[in-house]
Amino acid sequence: MSDPRFATTPQPPYYAVIFSSTRQADDGATYGETAERMVQLAQQQPGYLGVESTRGTDGFGITVSYWESEAAIQAWKRQLEHSEARRQGRERWYQHYELRVAKVERAYGKP
Amino acid sequence: MSDPRFATTPQPPYYAVIFSSTRQADDGATYGETAERMVQLAQQQPGYLGVESTRGTDGFGITVSYWESEAAIQAWKRQLEHSEARRQGRERWYQHYELRVAKVERAYGKP
Repeated sequence: MSDPRFATTPQPPYYAVIFSSTRQADDGATYGETAERMVQLAQQQPGYLGVESTRGTDGFGITVSYWESEAAIQAWKRQLEHSEARRQGRERWYQHYELRVAKVERAYGKP
Repeated sequence: MSDPRFATTPQPPYYAVIFSSTRQADDGATYGETAERMVQLAQQQPGYLGVESTRGTDGFGITVSYWESEAAIQAWKRQLEHSEARRQGRERWYQHYELRVAKVERAYGKP
């Protein structure tokens, strides 16, 4: 049975957005709701392939979303509700974050 | 002050190895020791740029290591002690894993 925490991605090439972050201490419930909503919205975007995400008890988290193309990533970045969520992320939710856009060239695993 | 959980990487392009995994339930202390040793060894490899890693309480983890080039990744893969650790990872420590090699094309953040 496949574990839904792993993204099921096609043969490379495709794209990955690697987002590592630490959270601010003082956020409310809005963060969790918004994060869930963003996953739902992303799934409806053209070119979306999947997401893998985890955060340790120390508050450091990594989320990798996978996309068919650079154009799909750009369109998702411009999506209105997502733009607003990103603004809140920068201002209220994240202490520090790094975002990297990368082209996946090869992949293998133990399923 | 910079947070050491974030990798300090140069201007793109460079490479990322995205490793997502779930652990087997029955591992001993050897896993933790070996994981630490591998980070130490990787740091001594030519072309190593940094690593970011986290695992949630549900056992799902993501580790992203950053490298100057594909050649540096290949050399690290061939390193003897690391080859042995990878074999143990496949056989004993990881239930499921996915490894993706990707070329980072652009990056930005909130430091």
